[in-house]
Amino acid sequence: MTAVNDPLATELNTPITDDEIFRAHEGGKLDVSVPRAITDSRALSIAYTPGVAKVSSAIAEDASLAKKYTWTDRLVVVVSDGTAVLGLGDIGPRAALPVMEGKSALFKTFGGLNSIPLVLDTTDVDEIVETLVRLRPSFGAVNLEDISAPRCFELEKRVIEALDCPVMHDDQHGTAIILLAAIKGANAVLDRPIADQRIVIAGAGASGVACANILLASGAGELTVVDSRGILHEGRDGMNSVKAELASRTNESGLRGGLAEALEGADVFVGLSGSTVPEELIASMASGSVVFALSNPTPEIHPDVARKHASIVATGRSDFPNQINNSLAFPGVFRGALDAGARRITERMKLAAAEAIFAVAQEDLSADYIVPSAVDPRVAPEVAAAVARAAKEDGVA
Amino acid sequence: MTAVNDPLATELNTPITDDEIFRAHEGGKLDVSVPRAITDSRALSIAYTPGVAKVSSAIAEDASLAKKYTWTDRLVVVVSDGTAVLGLGDIGPRAALPVMEGKSALFKTFGGLNSIPLVLDTTDVDEIVETLVRLRPSFGAVNLEDISAPRCFELEKRVIEALDCPVMHDDQHGTAIILLAAIKGANAVLDRPIADQRIVIAGAGASGVACANILLASGAGELTVVDSRGILHEGRDGMNSVKAELASRTNESGLRGGLAEALEGADVFVGLSGSTVPEELIASMASGSVVFALSNPTPEIHPDVARKHASIVATGRSDFPNQINNSLAFPGVFRGALDAGARRITERMKLAAAEAIFAVAQEDLSADYIVPSAVDPRVAPEVAAAVARAAKEDGVA
Repeated sequence: MTAVNDPLATELNTPITDDEIFRAHEGGKLDVSVPRAITDSRALSIAYTPGVAKVSSAIAEDASLAKKYTWTDRLVVVVSDGTAVLGLGDIGPRAALPVMEGKSALFKTFGGLNSIPLVLDTTDVDEIVETLVRLRPSFGAVNLEDISAPRCFELEKRVIEALDCPVMHDDQHGTAIILLAAIKGANAVLDRPIADQRIVIAGAGASGVACANILLASGAGELTVVDSRGILHEGRDGMNSVKAELASRTNESGLRGGLAEALEGADVFVGLSGSTVPEELIASMASGSVVFALSNPTPEIHPDVARKHASIVATGRSDFPNQINNSLAFPGVFRGALDAGARRITERMKLAAAEAIFAVAQEDLSADYIVPSAVDPRVAPEVAAAVARAAKEDGVA
Repeated sequence: MTAVNDPLATELNTPITDDEIFRAHEGGKLDVSVPRAITDSRALSIAYTPGVAKVSSAIAEDASLAKKYTWTDRLVVVVSDGTAVLGLGDIGPRAALPVMEGKSALFKTFGGLNSIPLVLDTTDVDEIVETLVRLRPSFGAVNLEDISAPRCFELEKRVIEALDCPVMHDDQHGTAIILLAAIKGANAVLDRPIADQRIVIAGAGASGVACANILLASGAGELTVVDSRGILHEGRDGMNSVKAELASRTNESGLRGGLAEALEGADVFVGLSGSTVPEELIASMASGSVVFALSNPTPEIHPDVARKHASIVATGRSDFPNQINNSLAFPGVFRGALDAGARRITERMKLAAAEAIFAVAQEDLSADYIVPSAVDPRVAPEVAAAVARAAKEDGVA
């Protein structure tokens, strides 16, 4: 059995060594390549002076031609200030870079999209928005990443308002999309509707809030959100405006207390908090429960322990069944948005992405396979097609 | 004979059609690639979560490790506001993009460096500097490009002061480096020293000023600079501060008047003005003269006409001998600076680059071969090695 405390063991039980990780990062994980070689004078005259002047002149006369004759229309910038990197917290823009490079690499690998990381030496929301506005002609879409809550909510809203292109904070919506897909998968296995379930989310940061919103939009039965101070309810102390607003739309039955009170009799647990959950709390859930222990690299509860009480267990890890990894979502979401020429990413597009991920898993569904593998190459094209259709239905493309 | 009015004829006399140019630009000229594939779970666990957390943590503890484990240390951003693009002028950032992509492609092709274009929707010097400061963790060097004079002088100075990495405005210094290499080549062919020559530069914009400076630093005999209003001399009207300062260091013999007065009896003409020069002015130069008709795509004088009077003629075009193209300079200059870990690009590094370009041409020198071909793959490595040595000699690496 793989030890859950070894975050780097794989499903093959071949441990990944630190040395292997560091060697795989030497020089970074991205390269720029030149698809049409410029090694002779003729090619130089086409790609550079004097030929390029024709293309620049054409764009000067009709700015829309930049979409066709430059790479920017299909370029996703992965933007971070390094304030909420993985479970590591505020480690700054330089330390965030390996994550952002990884993200850009996944955009290419699964979405076929060019992507570059832009990490910022400022955490000021005004300055980040302003910087992206100034850089607007350089890219086609913005993936905001690893930006701390609650700043991330305002930042995403402001960037969406300021730019006429797809913008998404992946820690919010990528996680929400794949969680919804996984809940659909679990419900299909257990043959029960989402409207009948009592769902508890532990964590009211970027991903917790977005997961709550997508579940509400999907008709979840009763939803309770718990942060480090306990259950969110109207009038509670110590809530920022985002939490207060969320409290007004959740916890219908007016529960009070902490995670123990929330989980008793609940059907679904969604762990997004980075803390641990005692076995007895999982045991107190309703029979046939579903546990998403998504904190990375250490799940809220060991999946083997959770499995003693729950019908279905999912984690963020590749070495256990049911890996919930937002790499299933973001490459296809942006690919679909850009394929459609969408000006923004709507709620319908996110719901369509979740449905498409669920659809890929559907024919092989089981308690140990509620979502496709994180590296299943079928997913992104299906997500992209569904997102593009939704963009057109929503009239944003 | 190739007609000089057809800017897109090549040395092979095979015309390049507009259709060929536009097709070669479809989708842009750059791609992001992923050198180590991430197509299975194990690779995903190394390049992304959870493995990447080890690398991010290491950089959080020691920021200097970002150089080793991210791509940024070797990434050159090509930055433009689109205010002085080729001979097209202020066509804006979107229309400038094809040129910037071409530049990035040449960084890769000849310098082996990753490079991305960043075009800015602002022409304010303060805002451009501020934007680059905020983006500082994202790149390793800055190539400023196609930014109008005299703003480009202040901007380059400010960016150099603000950033601890190699910064160069290529329209100034790339052009100056390759011009100096070409003058060295011409002087070797004609067997005469630079100190004995009277040199006239037409144009006091970005490249004219930088060419004047590098020639003065190289011991040029007498240097006269002419702008659209005539010869620069102390006390003249209509000079910005850069021109006024240049006037104080040039035109030793106190010439007055225009290009005709400047060229009479001159040894070298350097055309960087975009205007035309009548044949009789070239005829009025000293015997054994050298003509650099560098305006692109249309030289100041047809090279065949200039050749009737001058011993050596060079242009910016690939379809005539002696193409003066700064693609011989910038890939090697930045490669050498980054190889050496230089904090900035010094005058000695630029002079070393010119000397290295000249050295590659040296064994085959003739009146029709004063510089290597613009696509000679030997040049950038030689330039890089010389620049890296000079950086160490200057103590900036």
